[in-house]
Amino acid sequence: MTGALNLNSRVDRLILDALEEDVPTEDMSTCAVIKEGTPGVVDLVSKDDGVICGLGVFGRVFTLLDERTKAEFSVEDGDRVTKGQKIGEISGDMKVLLMGERTALNFLQRMSGIATMTFEMASLLEGTGVKLLDTRKTTPNMRLFEKYAVKVGGGRNHRFSLSDGILLKDNHIAAAGGVRKAVEAAKAYAPHVLKVEVEVENLDMCREALDAGADIIMLDNMSAGDMKKAVEMIGGRALTEVSGNVTKETIGEISSLGVDFVSVGALTHSAPAFDLSMKNMRRAGEKA
Amino acid sequence: MTGALNLNSRVDRLILDALEEDVPTEDMSTCAVIKEGTPGVVDLVSKDDGVICGLGVFGRVFTLLDERTKAEFSVEDGDRVTKGQKIGEISGDMKVLLMGERTALNFLQRMSGIATMTFEMASLLEGTGVKLLDTRKTTPNMRLFEKYAVKVGGGRNHRFSLSDGILLKDNHIAAAGGVRKAVEAAKAYAPHVLKVEVEVENLDMCREALDAGADIIMLDNMSAGDMKKAVEMIGGRALTEVSGNVTKETIGEISSLGVDFVSVGALTHSAPAFDLSMKNMRRAGEKA
Amino acid sequence: MTGALNLNSRVDRLILDALEEDVPTEDMSTCAVIKEGTPGVVDLVSKDDGVICGLGVFGRVFTLLDERTKAEFSVEDGDRVTKGQKIGEISGDMKVLLMGERTALNFLQRMSGIATMTFEMASLLEGTGVKLLDTRKTTPNMRLFEKYAVKVGGGRNHRFSLSDGILLKDNHIAAAGGVRKAVEAAKAYAPHVLKVEVEVENLDMCREALDAGADIIMLDNMSAGDMKKAVEMIGGRALTEVSGNVTKETIGEISSLGVDFVSVGALTHSAPAFDLSMKNMRRAGEKA
Amino acid sequence: MTGALNLNSRVDRLILDALEEDVPTEDMSTCAVIKEGTPGVVDLVSKDDGVICGLGVFGRVFTLLDERTKAEFSVEDGDRVTKGQKIGEISGDMKVLLMGERTALNFLQRMSGIATMTFEMASLLEGTGVKLLDTRKTTPNMRLFEKYAVKVGGGRNHRFSLSDGILLKDNHIAAAGGVRKAVEAAKAYAPHVLKVEVEVENLDMCREALDAGADIIMLDNMSAGDMKKAVEMIGGRALTEVSGNVTKETIGEISSLGVDFVSVGALTHSAPAFDLSMKNMRRAGEKA
Amino acid sequence: MTGALNLNSRVDRLILDALEEDVPTEDMSTCAVIKEGTPGVVDLVSKDDGVICGLGVFGRVFTLLDERTKAEFSVEDGDRVTKGQKIGEISGDMKVLLMGERTALNFLQRMSGIATMTFEMASLLEGTGVKLLDTRKTTPNMRLFEKYAVKVGGGRNHRFSLSDGILLKDNHIAAAGGVRKAVEAAKAYAPHVLKVEVEVENLDMCREALDAGADIIMLDNMSAGDMKKAVEMIGGRALTEVSGNVTKETIGEISSLGVDFVSVGALTHSAPAFDLSMKNMRRAGEKA
Amino acid sequence: MTGALNLNSRVDRLILDALEEDVPTEDMSTCAVIKEGTPGVVDLVSKDDGVICGLGVFGRVFTLLDERTKAEFSVEDGDRVTKGQKIGEISGDMKVLLMGERTALNFLQRMSGIATMTFEMASLLEGTGVKLLDTRKTTPNMRLFEKYAVKVGGGRNHRFSLSDGILLKDNHIAAAGGVRKAVEAAKAYAPHVLKVEVEVENLDMCREALDAGADIIMLDNMSAGDMKKAVEMIGGRALTEVSGNVTKETIGEISSLGVDFVSVGALTHSAPAFDLSMKNMRRAGEKA
Repeated sequence: MTGALNLNSRVDRLILDALEEDVPTEDMSTCAVIKEGTPGVVDLVSKDDGVICGLGVFGRVFTLLDERTKAEFSVEDGDRVTKGQKIGEISGDMKVLLMGERTALNFLQRMSGIATMTFEMASLLEGTGVKLLDTRKTTPNMRLFEKYAVKVGGGRNHRFSLSDGILLKDNHIAAAGGVRKAVEAAKAYAPHVLKVEVEVENLDMCREALDAGADIIMLDNMSAGDMKKAVEMIGGRALTEVSGNVTKETIGEISSLGVDFVSVGALTHSAPAFDLSMKNMRRAGEKA
Repeated sequence: MTGALNLNSRVDRLILDALEEDVPTEDMSTCAVIKEGTPGVVDLVSKDDGVICGLGVFGRVFTLLDERTKAEFSVEDGDRVTKGQKIGEISGDMKVLLMGERTALNFLQRMSGIATMTFEMASLLEGTGVKLLDTRKTTPNMRLFEKYAVKVGGGRNHRFSLSDGILLKDNHIAAAGGVRKAVEAAKAYAPHVLKVEVEVENLDMCREALDAGADIIMLDNMSAGDMKKAVEMIGGRALTEVSGNVTKETIGEISSLGVDFVSVGALTHSAPAFDLSMKNMRRAGEKA
Repeated sequence: MTGALNLNSRVDRLILDALEEDVPTEDMSTCAVIKEGTPGVVDLVSKDDGVICGLGVFGRVFTLLDERTKAEFSVEDGDRVTKGQKIGEISGDMKVLLMGERTALNFLQRMSGIATMTFEMASLLEGTGVKLLDTRKTTPNMRLFEKYAVKVGGGRNHRFSLSDGILLKDNHIAAAGGVRKAVEAAKAYAPHVLKVEVEVENLDMCREALDAGADIIMLDNMSAGDMKKAVEMIGGRALTEVSGNVTKETIGEISSLGVDFVSVGALTHSAPAFDLSMKNMRRAGEKA
Repeated sequence: MTGALNLNSRVDRLILDALEEDVPTEDMSTCAVIKEGTPGVVDLVSKDDGVICGLGVFGRVFTLLDERTKAEFSVEDGDRVTKGQKIGEISGDMKVLLMGERTALNFLQRMSGIATMTFEMASLLEGTGVKLLDTRKTTPNMRLFEKYAVKVGGGRNHRFSLSDGILLKDNHIAAAGGVRKAVEAAKAYAPHVLKVEVEVENLDMCREALDAGADIIMLDNMSAGDMKKAVEMIGGRALTEVSGNVTKETIGEISSLGVDFVSVGALTHSAPAFDLSMKNMRRAGEKA
Repeated sequence: MTGALNLNSRVDRLILDALEEDVPTEDMSTCAVIKEGTPGVVDLVSKDDGVICGLGVFGRVFTLLDERTKAEFSVEDGDRVTKGQKIGEISGDMKVLLMGERTALNFLQRMSGIATMTFEMASLLEGTGVKLLDTRKTTPNMRLFEKYAVKVGGGRNHRFSLSDGILLKDNHIAAAGGVRKAVEAAKAYAPHVLKVEVEVENLDMCREALDAGADIIMLDNMSAGDMKKAVEMIGGRALTEVSGNVTKETIGEISSLGVDFVSVGALTHSAPAFDLSMKNMRRAGEKA
Repeated sequence: MTGALNLNSRVDRLILDALEEDVPTEDMSTCAVIKEGTPGVVDLVSKDDGVICGLGVFGRVFTLLDERTKAEFSVEDGDRVTKGQKIGEISGDMKVLLMGERTALNFLQRMSGIATMTFEMASLLEGTGVKLLDTRKTTPNMRLFEKYAVKVGGGRNHRFSLSDGILLKDNHIAAAGGVRKAVEAAKAYAPHVLKVEVEVENLDMCREALDAGADIIMLDNMSAGDMKKAVEMIGGRALTEVSGNVTKETIGEISSLGVDFVSVGALTHSAPAFDLSMKNMRRAGEKA
């Protein structure tokens, strides 16, 4: 595997859980048609255009089933692939190839879908200096994989969890009794290694956050005009992030307002799957 | 919770895993701004039009954090909701409401997204007698939730895993050395409580599957003309299922061919999230 | 390992749990008498006549303790062995051989006991065309191993769990309000890949099940005479299974009634252990 | 629950694992025929004569599925029950009663089988002062339940695991280089709270064990004559235990030799299941 | 429980693991001497002077064993207690009180030991504006409890883990090829919600870190003179932290240098246990 | 690894849990500064004088992260090391060395601290024949490691848990209704492989314990004079153990009283950490 996923012991556990979800006892179809120990080869083929992501996880599904399985790829995470392109070959016990197929593809299709959507959004920001961020709107128990895919697609990660970043949103502000109180409470409470980010919905809140010493101000669902005024008011004294209904259509205008970051929930919650399949199963040594 | 999820001990474990993913140690923002033991109320608001699904799971997130939390809903799974509609109220320790918010919404937005897309596809089949099926193209470790959402949206579940159904696909047939051999092997091997389904790509394969005694024949990526001929050839001697690139545009034509089932992977792998939010956090007793 | 157990990630977890059950902290006797790193060899000896089953699991116990351990067998699962026969040799760190001994034997004695009883019952059906089935009356958390042993002994598996087969029993029929209602509900609800089996206790119920379209009819605790009438009534329109108090004494008569399957709970719940032991521990290189 | 099982957190985990083994996703038959929330009652009926054991575990299966389920019994663990006797009534959501039935019965039938066999063997020792012991020849991951059943049946437990007792057997003695060396090593190594037991096969070994200061001497597979001589030789300076091929036929003679304990592996590895069933499912309020 | 531990699902799991460590099968002494269901009361008595911490965890040990157990305290976390002071009373099934005693005390003695040492060190900083920090030098699998104890004792937490804070130490700087390169790499890589902290060993490294834009500079094992110069050089442009061999003897001088934070590993790795015991076990209703 | 830890499957699980505690998602600092796959070497250096313990666990942390990592040591568990001494070299992917550093050191510093304190106490008993014991006053979920460290330091282990030894303390005696009743109950209940130990606080209790047949008598918090009298009274009929406030100052006098064992809780609950660090990170092939 490559990157941040490589050394995480939870990755294997999540893959094993997914395998058990798909094969609670035995793969009936496969056990019926093929003897254990028949060496085979199968191709991994892209059926879409976009950015591939998750090859390490894809391969790991098979080696967790049988460490002798080999997964070889002609591309690597982050590369662009095209419809019909053969991008890898998996060889090993045919039973293993058949059993792991769907689980491996389910990871790969989702991660590549996210990387591809991220790449498309990030391309629209190219040259503007604005950075594209993800959110915590991820699929339960898939965050490690989905946040990795955002990075591979050219985005940056926002905080991973509620434990490694401060972000004071509307409900926190309501609970604290106002922007200033919330910021001050966070500064008093949080470890000194964390910055304090506040979500604001209008210029008054923005000024209050700034005065209270917020390190990062998130402009949430504000009009382009107000965002412009907010950026001017902040004047570099805090980092700025735009969130809320950012789409391919609106991201161009937003990037011209001088903000530092744009965060997009859809990257992880609404990217459609990237189509891929395993094709041409054959005995080892046979031609594809 | 309602339905099949209710009695499954894995559901709690998956929710707890998701909570730990989002709060590995402590919710810094929340712990900073609010004292434990402050009773609060917050609204659950739909920001989309569609079919709601996952209310039991949504509520369970909060009661797993603190069993005294109350989640009350004015709708139930399968109901249609509209943008702006308040559909529930959660009351309890404000810290619990803030900590569980994102995890609870992440389940709800995904399950409602799937139920909504399923409902739309199923509506196009209404009156035709053709039944809409899901596939195993689900998000890893989310299958219990995603297959439940398909049922709530009006679809039916195909097999849950490789252990509870036989489906001989291209790679199995290649491994077995042909359709007939694959079907015979499955009949000899499988428990007598399972039917044998075969995926065929052309009329020759279809005839071979039928002769070998397949119980269900899946017509995969065939032209409308060939599907029609296949249905005639089968003549009720096996159930028929269509799969492969079925979209809202093509499903109408397919439903007129006389097949029994249509299966659509996109229901679970590409349904966009359904937008919802928790709004109007307030102390217990205050007006929203 | 061989067969269906080979690729199941739960097998290792169950073996590790069993090892932890037997060695929660340390093997006091073994740690006292022998230094780590002393290479040794020990024989596996059958002390019974019957069908051996579970050699892969037996060996896996030792390799999970120390992957360098070697377990070599002169027989394989399903072979007949006799009292006094040396059937294998395990070599490795003496501490590992001593620590794993009881856990490994506990799996092997139970699995071989089941395989042996299954073989004896199945032999009585030879030539009749009637197939011997197991049930879900297994030892908790041992089902994977016990159902595998039934197959090795020459039986076939009925459904593995409540999730991969439909079987409507007396209590379901009572809950549904009759045989017909139960069958219809199952046909409406269940995935199309599953057949519907119904348990009937008399000829009236049998007819009702047949009319409702049951795929499999289980004749439960019926007299030989009634079973004969039931088989005639069914006339091949459904598969037939006999269950209830089938013993070595009665199975002969049952097999002559023309039914398809006979299921026997005793195979997994009452097979006595098969006696085996590890003998002749010696330092590597010494003669046994 | 009663007794040692009551406060053990592993008991719940083992029950939940067993439930997941039997219902990996959903109970298809039950979900098809009955709506959630239908209150029902069902009887627990003995179909055998013997000692009942495991009622607490049996009931716990249902309360782990739904804490509102009630399991009420007219007998308690250790009581003698007879064929046809109604011994309990379980009431709650019918779905819960149907889902938990097999798992609950699988525990109860095995535990009662062991308690019954133990009771029968222990009765043969009544008045002799000799105590009946179990062994570590238990079913993997069932030891907590099986050792509890031995106590309920009137036996005593030998050590639970390799960590809580010293027993030097043939292979330890071979590894240590003789009886004396093994005993001395154990005395030097083991915590002072543990006694040292040695298995001997003849009178020479017996004398050596005695001289080395063994606290307990196990006479393994020795003739009645030799056992008698061994008991005389030991003369109360060590506790004595007989093991190996003790059956209902031989236990009488053994008990007359003056030994302290007799251990019988068959209690846990070969006790046949005790037959029980859940009968007369009915809606709450209806007559059985 | 109080504070950050309250809503963390891992807390229960860690407590259950600790209970299983102490009672793998059954509490032999307790099961021998007392019948289940005998109601009792026992006192919790401090045998030391200091700051109590961990009462919630202490009580949770007992309620996880039996939810009916009551633990009532006359003090709360952070209060000062004295030798001989009765600080609580636990009532419930005597078996539960005896079984949970050691595990509950083991948590409490360690957490109170840490809180007490932290309190003593923090007192020495009172009025100086310098804040006392902990480190990641904690006991494996106890960090949640130990960091909580630091807060209760009056210290502040540094980052919890490698995932929620950036701290570039000597080995990182060596790997990166210098201070500047390390800081720049961290700024380019890390989520924007995290500050970048660098550990420096001399004034040159300090200047390089400052120039590269480090948010926090840790002065590691520097002389008082150099620390003074470093603080002047930094001039408020970064936060400053002192680490390395800070003791009760040296902390006074350090606090006069104008740094923001002092971190002390000993708080969590070398605080001696705080002595407490459970005394005066009596039947419910009896006088202590 | 060496010794009792070597074959325990829980050791790996506890190490993995500790790694996950320290790296829930990714090591931000390390991932920022260094590319995966850069081979490096780092030294393990002692910064204290004492007994090293835990090298196997230390190395296992790194091989669990990446099995290709090599940890080589010039000393072994139980050896004395001195401040400044280089005692090992770890080589592998630099990312792995940086990620595992703190977790590995946290185990090593605690285990070596305990071994060192045990060695110092045991030295004071040298030549007296009195044996030094640990207690169950260990850190939750660290007992396997801490009891191993006691043995490495020259102490002996008392019972590991409540399941593998009988020790009747004040609260048990109160619950049982006196010393005699408690001892008799234990003798009647416990497996015959366990001795019965009783804690007594004065000479009357001592006599009662002796008369009741206790195998081991623990003299708890008694005066030197009374302990002397107790030893005389016992006269070798039971083993004797002293406990309670044994310190380096008092242990000399105690050892002269003729008791068999002295148990010291401080060994595991109050040993300060032993200081160690990983130094001189360099690319493979570079000079340190």
